[in-house]
Amino acid sequence: MDIAKRFPENPIIKPEDVKPSRKDFIVECVFNPGVFKYKDKIGLLCRVAERTKQKKGILSVPILENNKVKIIEINLRDPELEYNDVRKFRYKGKGYLTTLSHLRIAWSKDGRNFTVEEKPAICGEGEYETFGVEDCRVNIVEGRYLLTYTAVSENGVCVGLIETENFKDFKRLGIIFPPHNKDCVIFPEKIKGKYYALHRPTGLLLGGNFIWMSSSSDLIHWGNHRCIAKTRENMWDCERIGVNGPPIKTEKGYLILYHGADYNSRYCIGAMLLDPEDPSRVISRTQHPIMEPTEDYEKEGFFGNVVFNNGHIVEGDRLILYYGAADKYICGAEISISEIFDSLGI
Amino acid sequence: MDIAKRFPENPIIKPEDVKPSRKDFIVECVFNPGVFKYKDKIGLLCRVAERTKQKKGILSVPILENNKVKIIEINLRDPELEYNDVRKFRYKGKGYLTTLSHLRIAWSKDGRNFTVEEKPAICGEGEYETFGVEDCRVNIVEGRYLLTYTAVSENGVCVGLIETENFKDFKRLGIIFPPHNKDCVIFPEKIKGKYYALHRPTGLLLGGNFIWMSSSSDLIHWGNHRCIAKTRENMWDCERIGVNGPPIKTEKGYLILYHGADYNSRYCIGAMLLDPEDPSRVISRTQHPIMEPTEDYEKEGFFGNVVFNNGHIVEGDRLILYYGAADKYICGAEISISEIFDSLGI
Repeated sequence: MDIAKRFPENPIIKPEDVKPSRKDFIVECVFNPGVFKYKDKIGLLCRVAERTKQKKGILSVPILENNKVKIIEINLRDPELEYNDVRKFRYKGKGYLTTLSHLRIAWSKDGRNFTVEEKPAICGEGEYETFGVEDCRVNIVEGRYLLTYTAVSENGVCVGLIETENFKDFKRLGIIFPPHNKDCVIFPEKIKGKYYALHRPTGLLLGGNFIWMSSSSDLIHWGNHRCIAKTRENMWDCERIGVNGPPIKTEKGYLILYHGADYNSRYCIGAMLLDPEDPSRVISRTQHPIMEPTEDYEKEGFFGNVVFNNGHIVEGDRLILYYGAADKYICGAEISISEIFDSLGI
Repeated sequence: MDIAKRFPENPIIKPEDVKPSRKDFIVECVFNPGVFKYKDKIGLLCRVAERTKQKKGILSVPILENNKVKIIEINLRDPELEYNDVRKFRYKGKGYLTTLSHLRIAWSKDGRNFTVEEKPAICGEGEYETFGVEDCRVNIVEGRYLLTYTAVSENGVCVGLIETENFKDFKRLGIIFPPHNKDCVIFPEKIKGKYYALHRPTGLLLGGNFIWMSSSSDLIHWGNHRCIAKTRENMWDCERIGVNGPPIKTEKGYLILYHGADYNSRYCIGAMLLDPEDPSRVISRTQHPIMEPTEDYEKEGFFGNVVFNNGHIVEGDRLILYYGAADKYICGAEISISEIFDSLGI
C-alpha cells in the first residue's frame, strides 16, 4: 500500500528550473538527488541530465574527452545504430547514453521551495566518468560527508567515492566498487569496528540485480562481500532491487528504503529492516511497495513509471523523501516511520 | 604467431583419467588447472566438471544444496527451457550450468606423467558455491599459497580466496570480488607497500570484459580499482580478455599471459608486460596470439577452439604451461620467455 503523502506542489524541481551548463545544451531531466542538511538549509545534490539540441534525422549526444565536452552525431538511419531505449543506445557495437549527467546543488530553507545553483557542483572527471556522474547518495559517516555515486564511462558503470566538508570543494577518493555496480550507501557508523556499505552488483546468466553488503576499515578498500537480499519472483521487485538512501538508524535496527523494479521497469519503493548487530541479516522486508508511481508526473516523463529516492531527511517519525519521478522531476513526499514499521509487520 | 611447443604426449590428463566423485557422476572435463610446485613435485589443481548420467529426453544436472548434491531433472521439450550452449542453460527464468565443478589435485615428478588424486581437494561449500568452484589460480604471495578461484551460485559468479599450507587443509577467506567477476591473480609481492591483484569484472551495455587492477593492505579488502587493458576491435581479443596465470616477475617487468576471445568464442593466449614500478601501466602487449587452438584436442572437446592456462612453471627462460584444451583436457606446452619478449617487441 502506498503510504507516502506527496507534496501538493509536486514536482518541486523541473528541468526548466535548471540552467543548462552550456548554451548548446538542453536540460532533459533533474532527478534522483542526494539529500543532506548543511548549516540551516536542506541541500539536494541533483542529477541533471543534459543533451545537445537535436537536429532532424540526427542523434546527437555529448560525452567527455579529456574533461571536455565532445559531441557525437549519428544518422538515425545508420544501420549500425541500435536505439530502442530513450536512455541509451548501441552504435558500432559500443554502448552509449543519450544524456550526460552532472550533479547540481539545490538549496532550501523550508524544504519545499528550492533554488538551483547556476553551475554544476560535480561534473564527470577523468577516464571513469566520460559518460557522466549519476545518482549520488550523501552519506554522513561519523560526521564526514561521503558521496557515493555512479561513475559512467566506456570502462563500465562503477561506484565512485567523493568527500566534501563544505559542498564547494569535492575530493575524489577513487572507484570503490568495479563494474557493473551502482546504488551504493554507507552506514552512518562503524559496527563492531568496521565500516559497512550496501551496493548493487549485477550478475549475467547467474545472479541478478541483488543487494550486497561489504565491510571496510578505511572506506577505500572493501571486502567480505555478501548478498543480503534478492529479487522475488512474481512480485513487484522481481527484476531488480537496490538500496535507495543511506541506512536510517532506528531503535529496531537499520531501516533501509530500496527500489524494486518488475519486468516492465516499473520502479516502486519498499523497505527492509536490518539487524543492528549483524546488518547482513534482514529482519523484515515489505511484501508490498510503500510507494509506487501513481501520479501523472510519476507515470509520464523521460522514463515513466518510476519513483526513486536517493536520500531523505529524518525528523522524528517523519521521513521526508526527495525523489526522482519518471526520471524527469524532483518531487517530495512524507512517510511516517511507524507506518513503515507497520508495513514491515514489526 | 603460435610460439608454443606442445608436449607430444598431449593431452596429458583426460576425463577418463579422473575417478568421478560419486558413482552416478560422469567426468565430462578436466581442464584449466592452477599450477604449483610443492616439495619435489609439480601439482595441478584441476577443474573437474561432472554431470549426472543423462537419461533420454531429460536434462539432468547436479547442484549443491546445504553442501549436498541435489539432482535437477528437466524435460528437454519443456518450453521453459532455453538450452543453446553446452555449458549452460536457463530454466523458468533462472540460469544454471550443465556441469558441477570441483578442484582435484594431480601430482607429477617429471612434469609429464601425472597421477590424479582419487578424491576432490576442494568442493563447493556454502551459499556462494552451490554451482561449484572453477578455474583456480595458485598464487605464491610472499611465500604463502593463495588460491583465487571462481565461486559460482545463484548469487552470481564471484572471486573467492582460499589459503593453504599443505594442499590438504584449505582455509576459505571469503569473496574478494563481487559479481560478475573471475580470472583473478595476485602479484607475488607487495609493490610500494600494497598487494595488487588483476581481475575481470564484466560490464553490461557499457564497459566489457576487461582487465582491472586493485590494491589491498590485507588481501581481503580491495580498492583503487582501475581498468588496465581492454578488448581490441577487429582483433583476436575483441570480445573478452582476462588474465591467465599469476604475474611472472622478470627483469623487464611483470609478464602476464592473458586469454583473448573473439566473437566466435575462440580463445587464444597473448602476453603483456607491466611496469614493475607501476603495474597498472601496460608497457607492451602482443599484437598476435602467442598460442592458439590448432591441434585436434584444442579444436574439439566440450567447448571447442579453446587454449586457456591458469598457471605455469618457470624454469629459467622456459615457461611450462599446463593448459585447458577445448574445455575438456589438460595439456602441456613450453614457451620461451625471450621469444615472448620478441613478440612483445622488447
